Amino acid sequence: MLPRPSFRVARALELPTCYAPRPSLRANCLKSRQTQTQRRRMGEFPRNYKIKPDPLEEWRNPPPSKWPNRIRLLMLPFVGAIIYSMWTESDSLKTETPSIAQKDALLKRENGVSEQSPMRLRMEQFIKQHQKQIVSELEKVDGTKFTIDSWQRPEGGGGITCVLQDGKVFEKAGVNTSVVYGRLPRAAIQKMRVNHKALDPDVDSLEFFAAGLSMVLHPHNPNAPTVHLNYRYFETADEFGNTNAWWYGGGCDLTPSYLYDEDAIHFHSEIKQACDKHDKAYYPRFKKWCDEYFNNKHRGETRGVGGIFFDDLDETEKDQEQLFSFVQDCLSAFLPSYLPIINRRKDMPFTEAQKHWQQIRRGRYVEFNLVHDRGTAFGLNTPGARVESILMSLPLTSRWEYMHAPEKGSREERLIDVLKNPKEWV
Amino acid sequence: MLPRPSFRVARALELPTCYAPRPSLRANCLKSRQTQTQRRRMGEFPRNYKIKPDPLEEWRNPPPSKWPNRIRLLMLPFVGAIIYSMWTESDSLKTETPSIAQKDALLKRENGVSEQSPMRLRMEQFIKQHQKQIVSELEKVDGTKFTIDSWQRPEGGGGITCVLQDGKVFEKAGVNTSVVYGRLPRAAIQKMRVNHKALDPDVDSLEFFAAGLSMVLHPHNPNAPTVHLNYRYFETADEFGNTNAWWYGGGCDLTPSYLYDEDAIHFHSEIKQACDKHDKAYYPRFKKWCDEYFNNKHRGETRGVGGIFFDDLDETEKDQEQLFSFVQDCLSAFLPSYLPIINRRKDMPFTEAQKHWQQIRRGRYVEFNLVHDRGTAFGLNTPGARVESILMSLPLTSRWEYMHAPEKGSREERLIDVLKNPKEWV
Repeated sequence: MLPRPSFRVARALELPTCYAPRPSLRANCLKSRQTQTQRRRMGEFPRNYKIKPDPLEEWRNPPPSKWPNRIRLLMLPFVGAIIYSMWTESDSLKTETPSIAQKDALLKRENGVSEQSPMRLRMEQFIKQHQKQIVSELEKVDGTKFTIDSWQRPEGGGGITCVLQDGKVFEKAGVNTSVVYGRLPRAAIQKMRVNHKALDPDVDSLEFFAAGLSMVLHPHNPNAPTVHLNYRYFETADEFGNTNAWWYGGGCDLTPSYLYDEDAIHFHSEIKQACDKHDKAYYPRFKKWCDEYFNNKHRGETRGVGGIFFDDLDETEKDQEQLFSFVQDCLSAFLPSYLPIINRRKDMPFTEAQKHWQQIRRGRYVEFNLVHDRGTAFGLNTPGARVESILMSLPLTSRWEYMHAPEKGSREERLIDVLKNPKEWV
Repeated sequence: MLPRPSFRVARALELPTCYAPRPSLRANCLKSRQTQTQRRRMGEFPRNYKIKPDPLEEWRNPPPSKWPNRIRLLMLPFVGAIIYSMWTESDSLKTETPSIAQKDALLKRENGVSEQSPMRLRMEQFIKQHQKQIVSELEKVDGTKFTIDSWQRPEGGGGITCVLQDGKVFEKAGVNTSVVYGRLPRAAIQKMRVNHKALDPDVDSLEFFAAGLSMVLHPHNPNAPTVHLNYRYFETADEFGNTNAWWYGGGCDLTPSYLYDEDAIHFHSEIKQACDKHDKAYYPRFKKWCDEYFNNKHRGETRGVGGIFFDDLDETEKDQEQLFSFVQDCLSAFLPSYLPIINRRKDMPFTEAQKHWQQIRRGRYVEFNLVHDRGTAFGLNTPGARVESILMSLPLTSRWEYMHAPEKGSREERLIDVLKNPKEWV
């Protein structure tokens, strides 16, 4: 029996994530070092993306610190003491133990991130590195720069939202990372215990950590498919700040308006190859899960031609290192699985009628994301969530026609047939 | 304290409704008389609306029956006997008493509909008459004919979906009636008992009836506002087919892309006038309810400039005749409240930038309908629901831009201000 994807806070990270709830006094002392550029951009609504100087340049190559290394080392105990005194004196303080957000902030500052670091920091580093690489490759494909918004959560964590809108190849492309430190309420813990027995049922709340990369690319050309990807890591801590339960989730799926079998086969083959390195059972199991999850049930159609989807992969599945390695391989498989497809489709000629059909399929994409996607629903119902990052997944334009149906025997009709009866591609 | 709108099956009728679940053996014998035209159209996917002959002509003036009156009268006991024998012999028969769907079908056939008829039949007749009138007036405004789809539920009831797509004035306009006979499961009864104590808590299921008219009009011109309307009546029957609980719900609201205060004032004045005839407290109470319900909570914005919204109006509020009269006046107020607005806005000049802003506002409309509207959610989660009628409320086209924000001091910004802080218009 396949485990069914269960609703959970971790799913906050499916797609857009990006919570920025109201600041708390206690957390204000914990703001990690930001570059001036990042600070200036936070919460800013740029009017015109094109006149901005390339922000990616700074993101990739941050300016050197104004403090020489030895002064920074001398400052550490001082900063640490201030942080310590602030959180021990804060009104909102609930525990004597430093939070995992505080621990991680100090660890990162003191030692950087290595293979000996907690998985939280390794996952964060991994997704941020891949975000840079993916953004850089997509900029080469499009010939347009992404707009970068960096934002922070006062409680710890933050995110980087990279968006390319109305580019030469992409109508809309978003590549986001987010890192969230927070507390899970009792009700959420109860729900999660269904899949994670390690969670203590007798506490009122639990500290948690979540980090994920999520991405949606909507190309202009109706021959080029939309693609979505999300990989995430979730962890809870006990009252002493030690790791309690942890798990990985994520997936990647392709949504064409015009189906080219060779594209679907290539996409699935690359993903299968990444899966097979770890477990021959993974691809068939996660392919099926994907078809079941990315499904517009009210229309009896999958969203697209699928890929893989999984959730709750924890120590009952494989050990943490093995699963991290699996998720790394899945994410690394993205560029080779999608770049050849977008490169061979982006400049194909197309008709007005094909663009029209694409717009109708975009409408179906919106339906899935707003009606069925649990991550989006969870995000939109979270007070203070960053709505713009959550809804970045929606296409730039879409269309709904009453009773639209494709011509008999057409390519459009064949797509619908495949969405109603998912195929085995490899 | 205002009663809050509660989730319930009656809300199936908020907006599109139109359930057509799987047929049951028992119900097949109950298909009421359909015209050949209606039968031909059921479940049909027209490819091109414009080449169809005007279906409204037949709908307004159905061809005379091929059977002379005296033969029809002679046939009645015969048809009645067949129906009786079929439902007493059917495998799926659960009760010896005829269902309210059966009773109503016979009553209508024998006596037509008068002031002595059950409220179910009077409401059905009333909404169908108004649907014709509204469709006819909107056709005059647009200069284009509506497409009419008539459909029936095997369990009893059915609906008429009238859609005008890509007209001269309206981008998309839908005017639907639906009449539903069915059974409420125990869980739904429990929920409804919160507001309707007359419901028997000790039964496994209850027969129910629901009838409503729902409408959404999206004009092309960005100066002309979108409007939505829905009025509905809900009733449950005890095991002997007698009326148990009943209530009315509904409302009407205006959604401009460019706000003209005079339009909002006119719209609200007409509605207030209808309300004031019945109870001076109604307008302020239902205006507030509307602002609370039609609200994109994730953006902290109302959908538009409001109108009225109410639900659960039953004998604890006023007697049935008084409430029916109130709902009739509300529905009758629609044409005078909207026609002057559409007529003065439909031919105004507009710029590309204004059309662009309208498309972004359309996106917000889609967000409300797919994320927050309980009727749409209920409909899409009902197996076998008529999805095309439910999603008829979506605009033809819409747009999502990352971090779009109107210029400071612009008309666009003023609209947002009003949506964030609903005004008192009259």
